[in-house]
Amino acid sequence: MSDLKTLFRPRSVALIGASRDTKKYGYWTAKSLFDNKYEGDIYLISRSGGEILGHPTYPDIMSVEGDVDLAIIAIAPKYIVPVVEQCVEKGVKSAIVVSTGFGETGAEGKEIERQMLEIARKGGMRIQGPNCMGTYSAAVSMNASIIDLAPGPMSLVLQSGNFGIDLNFNAKARNLGYSCWATIGNQMDLRFHDFVEYLEEDDISKVILLYMEGLRVESEEDGRKFLEAARKVAAKKPIAAIKIGRSAAGARAAASHTGSLAGSEKIFDAALKQAGIIRVDSPNELLDVAEAFSKCKPAQGKRIAILTDGGGHGVMATDSAESFKLEAPVLSEATQGKLAEILMPHCPIKNPVDLAGTPEADMWVFDRCLDVLLKDPEIDGVVIVGLYGGYADLSEEFRELEMDVAKSMITRVQSSDKPVVMHSIYAPQRPECLAYISDMGVPVFDSVKAAMRTMGALVDYSENRNALQEEAQAELPALPADRKEKVDAIFGAVRESGRINLVETEAREVLSAYGLPLAECLLASSEDEAAEKYETLGGKVVMKIVSPDILHKTDAGGVALSIDSAQAAREAYARLVANGLNYKSDADIFGVMLTPMLPGGVECIIGASHDTTFGPTVMFGLGGIFVEILKDISFRVAPVNMPSCRQMVEEIKGHKLLEGARGSAPCDKEALAETVCVISHMVNELREIAEVDLNPVFAWEKGLAVADARIVLHPND
Amino acid sequence: MSDLKTLFRPRSVALIGASRDTKKYGYWTAKSLFDNKYEGDIYLISRSGGEILGHPTYPDIMSVEGDVDLAIIAIAPKYIVPVVEQCVEKGVKSAIVVSTGFGETGAEGKEIERQMLEIARKGGMRIQGPNCMGTYSAAVSMNASIIDLAPGPMSLVLQSGNFGIDLNFNAKARNLGYSCWATIGNQMDLRFHDFVEYLEEDDISKVILLYMEGLRVESEEDGRKFLEAARKVAAKKPIAAIKIGRSAAGARAAASHTGSLAGSEKIFDAALKQAGIIRVDSPNELLDVAEAFSKCKPAQGKRIAILTDGGGHGVMATDSAESFKLEAPVLSEATQGKLAEILMPHCPIKNPVDLAGTPEADMWVFDRCLDVLLKDPEIDGVVIVGLYGGYADLSEEFRELEMDVAKSMITRVQSSDKPVVMHSIYAPQRPECLAYISDMGVPVFDSVKAAMRTMGALVDYSENRNALQEEAQAELPALPADRKEKVDAIFGAVRESGRINLVETEAREVLSAYGLPLAECLLASSEDEAAEKYETLGGKVVMKIVSPDILHKTDAGGVALSIDSAQAAREAYARLVANGLNYKSDADIFGVMLTPMLPGGVECIIGASHDTTFGPTVMFGLGGIFVEILKDISFRVAPVNMPSCRQMVEEIKGHKLLEGARGSAPCDKEALAETVCVISHMVNELREIAEVDLNPVFAWEKGLAVADARIVLHPND
Repeated sequence: MSDLKTLFRPRSVALIGASRDTKKYGYWTAKSLFDNKYEGDIYLISRSGGEILGHPTYPDIMSVEGDVDLAIIAIAPKYIVPVVEQCVEKGVKSAIVVSTGFGETGAEGKEIERQMLEIARKGGMRIQGPNCMGTYSAAVSMNASIIDLAPGPMSLVLQSGNFGIDLNFNAKARNLGYSCWATIGNQMDLRFHDFVEYLEEDDISKVILLYMEGLRVESEEDGRKFLEAARKVAAKKPIAAIKIGRSAAGARAAASHTGSLAGSEKIFDAALKQAGIIRVDSPNELLDVAEAFSKCKPAQGKRIAILTDGGGHGVMATDSAESFKLEAPVLSEATQGKLAEILMPHCPIKNPVDLAGTPEADMWVFDRCLDVLLKDPEIDGVVIVGLYGGYADLSEEFRELEMDVAKSMITRVQSSDKPVVMHSIYAPQRPECLAYISDMGVPVFDSVKAAMRTMGALVDYSENRNALQEEAQAELPALPADRKEKVDAIFGAVRESGRINLVETEAREVLSAYGLPLAECLLASSEDEAAEKYETLGGKVVMKIVSPDILHKTDAGGVALSIDSAQAAREAYARLVANGLNYKSDADIFGVMLTPMLPGGVECIIGASHDTTFGPTVMFGLGGIFVEILKDISFRVAPVNMPSCRQMVEEIKGHKLLEGARGSAPCDKEALAETVCVISHMVNELREIAEVDLNPVFAWEKGLAVADARIVLHPND
Repeated sequence: MSDLKTLFRPRSVALIGASRDTKKYGYWTAKSLFDNKYEGDIYLISRSGGEILGHPTYPDIMSVEGDVDLAIIAIAPKYIVPVVEQCVEKGVKSAIVVSTGFGETGAEGKEIERQMLEIARKGGMRIQGPNCMGTYSAAVSMNASIIDLAPGPMSLVLQSGNFGIDLNFNAKARNLGYSCWATIGNQMDLRFHDFVEYLEEDDISKVILLYMEGLRVESEEDGRKFLEAARKVAAKKPIAAIKIGRSAAGARAAASHTGSLAGSEKIFDAALKQAGIIRVDSPNELLDVAEAFSKCKPAQGKRIAILTDGGGHGVMATDSAESFKLEAPVLSEATQGKLAEILMPHCPIKNPVDLAGTPEADMWVFDRCLDVLLKDPEIDGVVIVGLYGGYADLSEEFRELEMDVAKSMITRVQSSDKPVVMHSIYAPQRPECLAYISDMGVPVFDSVKAAMRTMGALVDYSENRNALQEEAQAELPALPADRKEKVDAIFGAVRESGRINLVETEAREVLSAYGLPLAECLLASSEDEAAEKYETLGGKVVMKIVSPDILHKTDAGGVALSIDSAQAAREAYARLVANGLNYKSDADIFGVMLTPMLPGGVECIIGASHDTTFGPTVMFGLGGIFVEILKDISFRVAPVNMPSCRQMVEEIKGHKLLEGARGSAPCDKEALAETVCVISHMVNELREIAEVDLNPVFAWEKGLAVADARIVLHPND
């Protein structure tokens, strides 16, 4: 675990490159530190000497009499290396390099980064940046950024200062602020996972927000470190993230912006999901969920009651429930009965509960209905939509009434264990009673969609947290003890023969070594042997040519089905070998394999590949048109345990096909998940593997059959 | 065409039910009329007499000396019928009934509506409402609503007053207003199509906005009238709509709110598309597109250049391009060259063009780059994202510079024929220079997504308009002249035998009468005949039992494939009939049909059904798992011409399967579209038909085969 205590809670700060020039970072940062009343000691380091903002300066950090926990460095790259050396010498524990002109500009800048990093590593100092916009920490009132940040329950780690400005406008309008705020720039040393780990322990942070353009990875271990850190922390407090570069074009643009590797969007998305992170699409959405996580009780389920004073808004809320994976169930008869006692006969009380013009006559209907809904054991949360906050415009009497009702509603919300969020068309004006409601724990949104989406995020997070727990507690698959020995022998032989492609018989041996139940498979290297092996198997068999030079066996005429006699096997052998040589005259043909011909089933694909950011990954999909046309595939970073594997099988769009569509019996989804699970642990253990492709896998009502298997290793170096 | 001139441009208005009670509509409306300085004569009608707001009142409309064009009626339902009679007698041409308590409350209210409508129809008077929130018209400065509306280029027709308030807040913040604004309430007389037709001629309206919960339909002709009116008008000016009740739960909620029939969401969505209407999801989106249509030049294509001063916002814009069907192409070498002359070497100039911090040194880079992009013939529009509008915060000098650059950019936009939209993180504060930019024709959004989505809507509308034109000019399919005679005979015989289900042989005759090329089909009613008919066809044939009592022929064992001799045909006949009787002992068996066995192909479905709102509709989809599991179907209200039919074939998710996936040849999409086209014209002409189901249709590389056909008629009354 990385200790960033001296970064976020330093007892003293040195600003190296402090300046009197009002157009420089060295001035702005000094001003921010003093204006925000940082509670520790501030040392201004300036080569030009004199006072800055009425404070004395030091010519260098060595001249500072006291200890320095944190150095903020705002000097040009060419002067930086000796300064970093001095910091280490002075015993500085953390540094923030806000200057630009490093790795992001080319080779020269990269070399300076390398030198800085080397010095820092040796000296036990951690560095944030370079090329960043600083740091804020409410715990010690330190604003070492140039943005006017306020204290509050959110923490934000971000890769773009502009984005920080953007979000901050909106946060201020909502009266929300930060515990920790850090721009990570080039991620030379400190990276997302370091911050996420630190924020787990930061009690002020109720929610962690990430704005990501890409992880900086030198090896796949970097991606996995992020995944592990986020997974661990998200199990305790919510993490929400924007990851831009979602589209192929966007990923290219992001790469040219920060130089970070975008990796595969699908894998990144899967990794965020595996980490239990709520992924959002825009700055506003990020703040919406941040506000909800800061204020609301956790959701225990997805059954939502909608309370509205205007039909249209109620319908809009109901419309969007499904897209945010919420349910707006018909209310229980008991609850309908209680509501009927409160409401006029013309008010629809299914769900949405529509006050339909009654608040003008009696504002307390809001409060009474909310009470009934919060007490309904079949309801997990309430969304109030419509006009609340605007009744005050009618008269002074209404203004008071609206506030009284708001206070009562807040008492009910606070004593309930269910989340409540609100929409009001008056939200943008933030009238007194909505400001009260919002500050007291019910976020108020200006769009119905945002209110519903945010309630959906609360539910998502609860589900994520349960899933993380279940996944962590799941038993690992029981893998044969001698698997590695066996596989080492196979891989060794393959490498020895100068190959990285395993032939099917070898791939099957590897899978068998991991305990996957495969049909018997015999290799024949002559017609006689083919006949003999046929007799061993009997019944109907499939014969396939085995050659590292023939990858597409069917195209090469290298497959024979329904062989049902020794004589037919003998003939097939000759035919397949002849076809093989005809297809590729210098093919190295190992022989022909025989395996029992198994009945078909629903065609699936189980595979694994290697991602530049996260390393080994596993995938599941339906075969044929589903994978080819609809790209209907689920991914995870390997390894995954059974709960995630079951999710992978469930989450593909065509999963109904596995449940017995078109009158057929349902498939053995558990067997599919188990195979995915074993493959994921296999590729995690055997990092030599670049790619696994079990295609097709036939899923049956009971069990499955791997009908073809391919494994490719990474090249030798 | 409905003439609503006296509704929106009356020379005089009578407010019936004018009141001194400040809690009543009769007071609020009077105040609105006077406050807004309506330019015609206002007559206040009040039974209690005296002055209201310093103006004299009349005891009834008959006492008014001058002519009255428009009556606004704000009195309780029980008094309303004689008042409507008086209005007719007085020669009033239009009335707005704002009172509530009519059809929305039950049978009694419905009866009052019926009486009002009868009187109005006889007297040639049109009525808006009842149960509505009034009308606004900028042309005559008439605010007969209780909302503070301002003049401007939008017109809004809506079914919810609350929604009107909601939208108006936002509109005011954007400095946008209305030409015509009307709440249509119960749609007793005047409906959406009446307003849409009127607004075509209203020159002040640049864009028409609809907020719909459902159409009021007494017959399918009402739905079709809306479709026709909207299609006609959208070809000239943009229409954007929200239609709520999108989800099943939402549709139920909407129905209980307004009592209007929600109809099928999929069909409603198709109808909006056919009308060329831009459908949006939320009030904010509606206003976004309204603003863009009011201000921007039409888009001629979807190739967008993104200009940004911050990497992150540029990437976000690029990310969302695809989801809004925009392209952010790599810029031409010529354009890249020109930009390279303007920008510093470190600025990425692919697309997005990233100013990357240079504006602080030279604000004019914005203007110069915009100029280059607008002049690029390979670019159809420009989206500017980032921080513009916030440079003013740096210094007074920057404030002036930012305004000067804004003025120059506006000149360029105005002299270009391309749309430009903008995002700025400073948009919510609406600083001076952004207010200028927005008022001068470049909408400025506070989210990148909104900017991109809105540019997408501009492109959509241009494409819609082209599609409407193409569709209108398309040749109708050449249908045989004697089709109706033939079909009448078939339907007559079916009805005569007390049926509404056609057997397959009858359904095939109907399709043949419409000129669809079907394989020969012969009916045999004995074993001998089966043998004889087999000889006529020869080769391999399919035999199917023909019985109105056996709908699922396969389940009943009523289908035999690959019959290749007279003897086999004879045996099959006996077997199929026996199976049929075994399946249903009292089945009326017409015989067994024989038809050549045709090769398979890509399995498609072409069908037609009846929608309660829009009448006959047509559908196309891929068969098997696509339709059963993925519900991958396209719909249209019938009839449709070839351009729309081609779209229907293209727009299904699995359309790649038709283009020769998995190494097979592409299908004859034109033949599929032609069949859809004929079916659509057939069901439009033959309103007796309730349902058509051609399933499966095998699409070949050339042509297609209808392998099974089913037609069901509407019940007799």
